[in-house]
Amino acid sequence: MSKTVLLATEKPFSQAARNEVVAIIEGAGYTARVLESYKGKGPLLEAVADVDAAIVRSDIVDPEVLGAAKKLAIVVRAGAGYDNIDCVAAKEKGVAVMNTPGQNANAVAELVFGMMVYAARGKFDGKTGTELRGKTLGLHAFGAVGRAVAAIAKGFGMPVFAFDPFVDAKAFQAVGVEPVGSAEELYRRAEYVSLHVPATKETKGSIGKKLLSLMPKGGTLVNTARKEVINEAELLEVFAERADIRYLTDIPPSDATLATLKEKYGARFYATPNKMGAQTEEANVNAGLAAARQIIGFFERGERQFVVNP
Amino acid sequence: MSKTVLLATEKPFSQAARNEVVAIIEGAGYTARVLESYKGKGPLLEAVADVDAAIVRSDIVDPEVLGAAKKLAIVVRAGAGYDNIDCVAAKEKGVAVMNTPGQNANAVAELVFGMMVYAARGKFDGKTGTELRGKTLGLHAFGAVGRAVAAIAKGFGMPVFAFDPFVDAKAFQAVGVEPVGSAEELYRRAEYVSLHVPATKETKGSIGKKLLSLMPKGGTLVNTARKEVINEAELLEVFAERADIRYLTDIPPSDATLATLKEKYGARFYATPNKMGAQTEEANVNAGLAAARQIIGFFERGERQFVVNP
Repeated sequence: MSKTVLLATEKPFSQAARNEVVAIIEGAGYTARVLESYKGKGPLLEAVADVDAAIVRSDIVDPEVLGAAKKLAIVVRAGAGYDNIDCVAAKEKGVAVMNTPGQNANAVAELVFGMMVYAARGKFDGKTGTELRGKTLGLHAFGAVGRAVAAIAKGFGMPVFAFDPFVDAKAFQAVGVEPVGSAEELYRRAEYVSLHVPATKETKGSIGKKLLSLMPKGGTLVNTARKEVINEAELLEVFAERADIRYLTDIPPSDATLATLKEKYGARFYATPNKMGAQTEEANVNAGLAAARQIIGFFERGERQFVVNP
Repeated sequence: MSKTVLLATEKPFSQAARNEVVAIIEGAGYTARVLESYKGKGPLLEAVADVDAAIVRSDIVDPEVLGAAKKLAIVVRAGAGYDNIDCVAAKEKGVAVMNTPGQNANAVAELVFGMMVYAARGKFDGKTGTELRGKTLGLHAFGAVGRAVAAIAKGFGMPVFAFDPFVDAKAFQAVGVEPVGSAEELYRRAEYVSLHVPATKETKGSIGKKLLSLMPKGGTLVNTARKEVINEAELLEVFAERADIRYLTDIPPSDATLATLKEKYGARFYATPNKMGAQTEEANVNAGLAAARQIIGFFERGERQFVVNP
């Protein structure tokens, strides 16, 4: 049965990426509609009126949009975060919401190494730095991003171990990563710790003094995960107590913490201007293509693996 | 037969590194002398007077120093470049001069990737960048640094090929690198070219319009080798003609070229403040240890592999 799929992107894909998404949709015998670079909610309300599925990026899908979408069965966020979609309202209307996890994993992993080399070489200050080779790397959580980080780490000759209570021991060993039994052991052994935990009730504020003080001399925490998992007050305490600890983050901390870190500990701290780890052309394209494929799988084979509002 | 080895470092090693060098010398039953952080030539002239061997860094070893060193048989530069040592005068006096090539190869290779990720991610500007994964990497020359770059490239998932007429085809294949038959082919195929050629009569000014115009869209030249191999006038011509070409360098070009590149093509150009590729603590330590071992090999087993003034 033919379906109509809307690609609604206030911030459009590149032309090449959009054409690939359309080709996948049409390749399944579906009709593709494209709404790009629109202003205000009006065009989206109109465009969703009679489509069966929608692919969006950061576009807002609120109760009003869902109400206007009389035939909508599924909306897919081409990307990881989906807080632009009202999942509860969607569920009430029987609309499945999906994201496309893992498509930006390599993008994030490359930034991890970009930041680590940048910091190890004194932010490219022209002076004597240090090397990553031979340094121990601990992955705090071992999902798609952790695995991508592990792959790159091998090229750098870094011994890698990981802590993730939700991952089977075999999954670590399959890619040559040593599982460790506790977060404490991870921080005790890792000269670099790369954070890949989600922000949950359990993880919020969980990275603080208890773990960071365990790190060996020169210990460096790299955060491309979430801002909320850091206990910022305790991070500052550790910085004050130990002159060797470093923090590199793709998610700038709160304004006050950021100001203190920059002012007092500038040489041991680096933050990108805003979360950019997942932001590459390749990740965007991959997410768009995955979204189109997931919609086809949903209609043709009832695949619900990536539904986030079950 | 016991020997006396002087470690003369105007810019000293770290204490740990110095102690390791001394331990190697004494482990061979030799006497170690250390002259560190000295000012002017006087202390060096005095210290070399009765030593059999000397390890130096950027310390000046000129005819006066050589003249004062009555028993000197060998001087080793702990590092790659040895233009601080008067090799001709040393030869006339029968003093062997060595360097410690390859000890800084990984340091340079890590900076190559640091600069590539930094540039691919818009110098960490917080906006959408690109990934290295899947991009082709061409190594122009395949010595110690080229090999170290190839090892890291594998972690990033970059297909690697190399051009080096002085390297046997088997050496490429042993490490999974595809040899190509000409520099032209290398530049035609490589989205990233990493330069590792020495500055010789043949290579000076050899990287110019002819090669750079062959590069595919978005082609990026990475120079951690030598400033002199670039034809700067032609580089600027290529930049003017093609809005996609990028240049990343660890050796800032001449002042006028640097000013033009920064002013007109800032987004496509990056230069470190000064050549820092080889400058890591690890490379320094490795070079010091290698120098000590080479001196022992020279006296005990007549090893002359790294003599640069044969």
